[in-house]
Amino acid sequence: MDVKALQARLRNFAAARDWQPYHSPKNLAMALMVEAAELQELFQWLTPEESHALTQNAADKERVADEIADVLLYLLQLADLTGVDVEAAVEHKLRKNARKHPARPA
Amino acid sequence: MDVKALQARLRNFAAARDWQPYHSPKNLAMALMVEAAELQELFQWLTPEESHALTQNAADKERVADEIADVLLYLLQLADLTGVDVEAAVEHKLRKNARKHPARPA
Amino acid sequence: MDVKALQARLRNFAAARDWQPYHSPKNLAMALMVEAAELQELFQWLTPEESHALTQNAADKERVADEIADVLLYLLQLADLTGVDVEAAVEHKLRKNARKHPARPA
Amino acid sequence: MDVKALQARLRNFAAARDWQPYHSPKNLAMALMVEAAELQELFQWLTPEESHALTQNAADKERVADEIADVLLYLLQLADLTGVDVEAAVEHKLRKNARKHPARPA
Repeated sequence: MDVKALQARLRNFAAARDWQPYHSPKNLAMALMVEAAELQELFQWLTPEESHALTQNAADKERVADEIADVLLYLLQLADLTGVDVEAAVEHKLRKNARKHPARPA
Repeated sequence: MDVKALQARLRNFAAARDWQPYHSPKNLAMALMVEAAELQELFQWLTPEESHALTQNAADKERVADEIADVLLYLLQLADLTGVDVEAAVEHKLRKNARKHPARPA
Repeated sequence: MDVKALQARLRNFAAARDWQPYHSPKNLAMALMVEAAELQELFQWLTPEESHALTQNAADKERVADEIADVLLYLLQLADLTGVDVEAAVEHKLRKNARKHPARPA
Repeated sequence: MDVKALQARLRNFAAARDWQPYHSPKNLAMALMVEAAELQELFQWLTPEESHALTQNAADKERVADEIADVLLYLLQLADLTGVDVEAAVEHKLRKNARKHPARPA
């Protein structure tokens, strides 16, 4: 995935619709959260087992895919606007997580 | 960003810590949401202007970057587990969004 | 507001619809969160000033009122199921908050 | 629970700390959501059965009670600020829910 190219497309998409005044980091963080809730809602009343099986159904899988995309698109726009390098942030966090949670001995 | 390579690393990271029993799609969607809330919390009491300025401070920028990474890491794990192709989902959603929100006339 | 009477009504409402198997504390906490997101969504793209003015419009006020009720109804059900006394919890938390955030000198 | 008395106490508490400028409806809705996430986080990795058992432990029960109180306190402040009558909103929503979800035949 070409993160920077995708962020440029999203920047142009928002500009062509005059959405920049609405796109403060605060508002994008709120919008991301609302999409995360719509994603969570798809699993809300399911047992753990049913949640594993949900995307065997094509229509449900498209719903999950759409909500995953919605979260990601707001996340990339928020990173773009706040000057956060997504890939560097991921590497940095993975190193932190490895220190915080050592693997069990083999 | 090599999404599939990153998903493989996350899969191995979880396996080495025996976390798979906890990683149902339902639980990952919940964890994603909690991280989205921690991201939102950084902007919660700020004015729109202050939210634009927040990441000019290096320590705040690292906090935002860490939370962005946390959201993304759970999102990639959820996509992996549900068999959703992240890049295809993004392209599909961008086309839907373009139909739903036509650009203003130039 | 008679909290215990309301909780009894909600318990009967759920029982008459055979919803108890879905009403684990975990699922109710998820449902509460989804309703909180729907409430937040009403304010998402508004300026602080617009958010103050929103409920001057009767239709918007009803939307806000409905979402406030949805959050409260799940909260009361979750408290009922986990054996939490809502009024005691509120008094306890108000005392904690007063210690944590002393009032400014007059 | 005396909702209006509680709202008056919360109004005075915020005023004595000069918090009113931060308490737009938008910000209170965000704060409520963050507290809802902290509540959800307590149940995040639990099985449905473990989520039922959590509050048998006194320390966990206090955590749940504190988060329930936090959600409720923001909810009451948001209702106060937007002019929503909480008890009327609840009655209105219960009637709507009864129409939307008829009870099963006995």
